[in-house]
Amino acid sequence: MSAYHPLTEQEAVEIARSLSEIFTGDAQLQCREIGDGNLNLVFHITDPASGQSVIMKQALPYAKVVGESWPLTLDRARIESEALQLQGELAPGLVPRVYRYDPELALTIMEDLSDHVIMRRGLIEGGSYPLFADHISTFMANTLFYTSDLGMNQQEKKLKVRAFINPELCKITEDLIFDDPYTHSSNNNIDPAIQDAAQALTEDSELHFEVALLREKFLTQAQALLHGDLHTGSIFITPQSTKVIDPEFAYYGPIGFDIGAVLANLLLNYASREGWDASEAVYEQYKENLLTMIADIWTQFEAKFRALWEQVSVDRLASSSAAYKDHYMLQLLRDTIGFAGCKMVRRIVGLAHVADIDTIADTAVREQAQRKALAIGTALIKHNRKARSIEEAIALAAGASALANA
Amino acid sequence: MSAYHPLTEQEAVEIARSLSEIFTGDAQLQCREIGDGNLNLVFHITDPASGQSVIMKQALPYAKVVGESWPLTLDRARIESEALQLQGELAPGLVPRVYRYDPELALTIMEDLSDHVIMRRGLIEGGSYPLFADHISTFMANTLFYTSDLGMNQQEKKLKVRAFINPELCKITEDLIFDDPYTHSSNNNIDPAIQDAAQALTEDSELHFEVALLREKFLTQAQALLHGDLHTGSIFITPQSTKVIDPEFAYYGPIGFDIGAVLANLLLNYASREGWDASEAVYEQYKENLLTMIADIWTQFEAKFRALWEQVSVDRLASSSAAYKDHYMLQLLRDTIGFAGCKMVRRIVGLAHVADIDTIADTAVREQAQRKALAIGTALIKHNRKARSIEEAIALAAGASALANA
Repeated sequence: MSAYHPLTEQEAVEIARSLSEIFTGDAQLQCREIGDGNLNLVFHITDPASGQSVIMKQALPYAKVVGESWPLTLDRARIESEALQLQGELAPGLVPRVYRYDPELALTIMEDLSDHVIMRRGLIEGGSYPLFADHISTFMANTLFYTSDLGMNQQEKKLKVRAFINPELCKITEDLIFDDPYTHSSNNNIDPAIQDAAQALTEDSELHFEVALLREKFLTQAQALLHGDLHTGSIFITPQSTKVIDPEFAYYGPIGFDIGAVLANLLLNYASREGWDASEAVYEQYKENLLTMIADIWTQFEAKFRALWEQVSVDRLASSSAAYKDHYMLQLLRDTIGFAGCKMVRRIVGLAHVADIDTIADTAVREQAQRKALAIGTALIKHNRKARSIEEAIALAAGASALANA
Repeated sequence: MSAYHPLTEQEAVEIARSLSEIFTGDAQLQCREIGDGNLNLVFHITDPASGQSVIMKQALPYAKVVGESWPLTLDRARIESEALQLQGELAPGLVPRVYRYDPELALTIMEDLSDHVIMRRGLIEGGSYPLFADHISTFMANTLFYTSDLGMNQQEKKLKVRAFINPELCKITEDLIFDDPYTHSSNNNIDPAIQDAAQALTEDSELHFEVALLREKFLTQAQALLHGDLHTGSIFITPQSTKVIDPEFAYYGPIGFDIGAVLANLLLNYASREGWDASEAVYEQYKENLLTMIADIWTQFEAKFRALWEQVSVDRLASSSAAYKDHYMLQLLRDTIGFAGCKMVRRIVGLAHVADIDTIADTAVREQAQRKALAIGTALIKHNRKARSIEEAIALAAGASALANA
């Protein structure tokens, strides 16, 4: 289309007009830039006459977070676009369709999901998503199995590892999740009310040991093509539909990192329920439903992943040993639990928080929610290598949360 | 220089003549092709007048093994040349110097090491290499530490992972080492005398489980830039000097795979000492020296790797936890022991054997040596995740060997 420059709304409209499968040539297109401007421009382009619409996402060559700005490769647009297309093939209907990708402009044109809501917002508002566990477990089982050495040609997998080398985005995770929360980093963002708990994180050598082991997996274990940032802000949802978006952090890493991200963000919402304005019974039922959803996600993920392994595995030795399969699945559960813990801790004391907790207006209630989240997170991290079942981990989380209440 | 084609000796001489830092323009160069023709052409080019010489190694676009031929990428010449140069920087004096690399011709021109012998040959002839443990432990500690997430910028490391993606050569290892020996594969090469022991390998589910775990590490763990084929046939040696050659299998993999390869090949020589024609005392002393060398290699490797970690680590979290360091080193030892076992087993029943054992003339003695090697190899594989020290592993190996004698 042209050399890279951030598009104006007018330019975005001109490009959209060329999408003949969506818009007619004479359509009167409307355009609105709806990104937060930190990492990407996001244009929402609609044809009021036909009701057709698309999203155009253009990567910016820098990241802005809390006022700071640092350069960021445009190659992440390629990674995101290629990951979306691959995920669309492996998990049909669970990611937005990609209509076009323009490498020079770092621009992806994709399905408009305005009829969905961001799941984090939906959960904060107390939404109920009875199909989510089924959808997200299918998304993870399919995308992770079929990109692993169990589910795809092992030589082609190595070429995929190469195509998804993603140093800059991985660096963000390595620092913000696996380092900063455990030391005195200027990146941290700590509510003064929990300064004591944040300080304790920097002094806990057992915790540091476990986080170092999890960090090593993130740095070295090219197990499957991860989404890489699978929190509830990366999921568009309705009661009937789930769409996973924004895989710009995609790279080959440990499978448990994706599953852990989902579970962590449900547990962050669980911890935030301190401040929910509802009757006690509804409140307890909502929390109970979240824990059931967590158990369902793991249980269904495991069943689907194992079924794929039975049906289509490409690895003779790995498939001939029942003990190896059980060991592999248990290791995935343990990694999931450990990474979930890391994901929770960083959302309390690290750079980027979650609205589930930060939007709690009552400061005492917010403090309580933060302490619960930290208690769950650290308990999961310390427990991960000893875990035997998801039920046990959930009981541990609920117990840690209840104790932090005292 | 020109488009790819296998060079003639005359063309090799013409190219060599351009090496003005080594040969004068009017030198009367002599050339001999000394490769085995299976994977590479190797030209030995000398100037009798000056005494100067070089080796020119050109990759062939196919591999020939036991009559079969399959295509093989010329990119391995780039990988070998880049690995050699990197290893030369990280472990000066322990690899041949590279004078030139020509990507189009898949040609590397390097230091002539004709004053060295291949270590496997040297060991078969009973050679003594008192500096080897020091040299090889330095080579491994330096090349593995400085290419890992502990010793180099973690984002640059990811670019190195990408540059050394090596699907075709890894495939050879994945099949010949981590699959064929444990099933009825047409690639296997089994002495009929040990058919019962080979059959037992295909029926041992405990063994399959452990090999599947080690295979998974080989497939997924991008820990450091490995040599990838570090057996005693890849080492040129004199009593004073050690030069590691032929890193065409280089890729980012588990550190223990390189260390295990060295130890396995010393243990294969140990097992071969059944057939050695010498007095009992000399024979026992030689074997004892091999075990001492194995202990020294691990002990010195660990000390050097830990010293680098103390001095130049780039990873804050990994370096701040003493427990993590101990865990990491113990895991390297365990991986080393497991991979050593795999390397031994494949050299007995797999496609490619070792001269240490295959050249034993007496069939009964050769059978005994093969059984000893299999007994050591399987014992190490089964023990690897329980190992606590190199001494314990060596005692296990010596014991398994003695029992196989009965």
